[in-house]
Amino acid sequence: MSIKLTILGCHSATPREAAHPTAQFLEINHRFFLIDCGEGTQMQLRKSKIKFSSINHIFISHLHGDHFFGLIGLVSTFGLLGRKNDLHIFGPTGLMEIIQLQLKATSSYLGFNLIFHELNSKEEELIFEDDHVEIHTIPLNHRVYTNGFLFKEKVGERKLNISAIKENPEIEICDYQHLKNGRDFVLQDGTVIKNKHLTFNPNAPLSYAYCSDTSYKPAIVRQIKNVDLLYHESTFLKDKVDLAVITKHSTAEEAAKIAKAANVGQLILGHYSSRYPEKKLFLEEAKTIFDQVILSEDGKVISLENSISNALCVAHQN
Amino acid sequence: MSIKLTILGCHSATPREAAHPTAQFLEINHRFFLIDCGEGTQMQLRKSKIKFSSINHIFISHLHGDHFFGLIGLVSTFGLLGRKNDLHIFGPTGLMEIIQLQLKATSSYLGFNLIFHELNSKEEELIFEDDHVEIHTIPLNHRVYTNGFLFKEKVGERKLNISAIKENPEIEICDYQHLKNGRDFVLQDGTVIKNKHLTFNPNAPLSYAYCSDTSYKPAIVRQIKNVDLLYHESTFLKDKVDLAVITKHSTAEEAAKIAKAANVGQLILGHYSSRYPEKKLFLEEAKTIFDQVILSEDGKVISLENSISNALCVAHQN
Repeated sequence: MSIKLTILGCHSATPREAAHPTAQFLEINHRFFLIDCGEGTQMQLRKSKIKFSSINHIFISHLHGDHFFGLIGLVSTFGLLGRKNDLHIFGPTGLMEIIQLQLKATSSYLGFNLIFHELNSKEEELIFEDDHVEIHTIPLNHRVYTNGFLFKEKVGERKLNISAIKENPEIEICDYQHLKNGRDFVLQDGTVIKNKHLTFNPNAPLSYAYCSDTSYKPAIVRQIKNVDLLYHESTFLKDKVDLAVITKHSTAEEAAKIAKAANVGQLILGHYSSRYPEKKLFLEEAKTIFDQVILSEDGKVISLENSISNALCVAHQN
Repeated sequence: MSIKLTILGCHSATPREAAHPTAQFLEINHRFFLIDCGEGTQMQLRKSKIKFSSINHIFISHLHGDHFFGLIGLVSTFGLLGRKNDLHIFGPTGLMEIIQLQLKATSSYLGFNLIFHELNSKEEELIFEDDHVEIHTIPLNHRVYTNGFLFKEKVGERKLNISAIKENPEIEICDYQHLKNGRDFVLQDGTVIKNKHLTFNPNAPLSYAYCSDTSYKPAIVRQIKNVDLLYHESTFLKDKVDLAVITKHSTAEEAAKIAKAANVGQLILGHYSSRYPEKKLFLEEAKTIFDQVILSEDGKVISLENSISNALCVAHQN
């Protein structure tokens, strides 16, 4: 049970040197996801030494350029690198047409299946599920149709209590998987040993909510309640709350209010407007409301490990 | 009469950290042109401290992603920055549809006119002309429809020979422009002083030919004969000439053969394949054929100043 989030870019609107537009690479419970893909994302992936082959699922929040203009370049590069695995792209209706038009115009041959999952529902949806993870949309409120994404680990197998097991010589290694799956053990004399005496609870599953871009929307609190990690955009400080309302963005204070109301483990701020000279202003404003705040920075890695009862969050700059 | 060429990116195919795809910014005779626009070009422009407002004309050679995937981002940024001036884009048919589809999908409002000049002729064409410069297409041979571009300064005004003028007190300052325009001077007694005795020849106009991407195509030599500066792609070395033929690219040796046959002043190599560990291998190969060779590097600036008879070329890394 672990999360490793690499911030590839966390700046709003126009890309600048050392200020990359939005993209994140998420490793959660041994699954890998790319979230948004602003211009230059493929260079940022290389800089962070992330294997291109690990990316099989890409999630695009909305069709503003700073969140998807890097996608066609990445897809083309996959083609040039001889990729074979299916690539799944989840994003708003319209994205498929944009990518396909450019692939056609560039006479690109892709040796892999490009599978679009176009999103248009305004209600929360389960859009991905396997035996490790499930992913839901988080309907947001922006100038164009926008979804956040909620990534939730599934509850894992129970953990073997080896010392308790050893006290029962009838239990063999071939029985372990049944125990991990929660089954009781029946001795030859018919005695039932309850599973809870032979195993520990699995680690609590972790969760990550990505919310960008959006105006202040308290309605999302219900859906992201108690997530371990929340990325919430903070384009502005509260001195520009009027502008935040007009452009349907959020302030750092508003992001912190959402984090507090949802009782999240850790809030990550980002999507900073270039009008502010220092990122620490966002941190200071958010901390007046909610204490557990991290600033996203291009290249920063945020790791979350879960033991049975405690989540430990560590951030470092690549 | 001067050329200043900034190499924004000079690598082929897949962008990597510190290996940007093709884009060049050309200043020629006080006019400014952007040539090709691979992903990340707008960041490279900022890095080279080139004013976005100086770009009013963009030339796209062909519809391969490493030559135009940065265009939509740059156009969007112009819009976000409040640009008002017309923007002219010259490129193959199909480019307009790609840009317009994305502007529509992103609900982008542009406060300026975006004027496309779609190219589809296979013959050389004059596509731009003002009182300083003229620009012609150079039909190339690549896997998709591709043009190079030939930028030619126009012959400037004649230069005043002040000491000769001073010997004729009848010539006043208000006559100077006529002399610069080549007119003879008629004294009050009817004597004609030939213009050539009162002025010097103007500096020779400079020219720059951009040829990428292309297979070895000796037919272009006629058109680029005697240009001062030639950029010719050299994706491969001659060890991969078979691959160059298949992919319709050139080797460094072939680029040098073109430069030699055309008697150019200076050859610039670029569009290097990432398979080669060192760029100097391209330089060494080209120099066996033609001596005046420069390697393009991301961020390198190549300047050419013309006095009456000599062109002086200087290159430095930003």
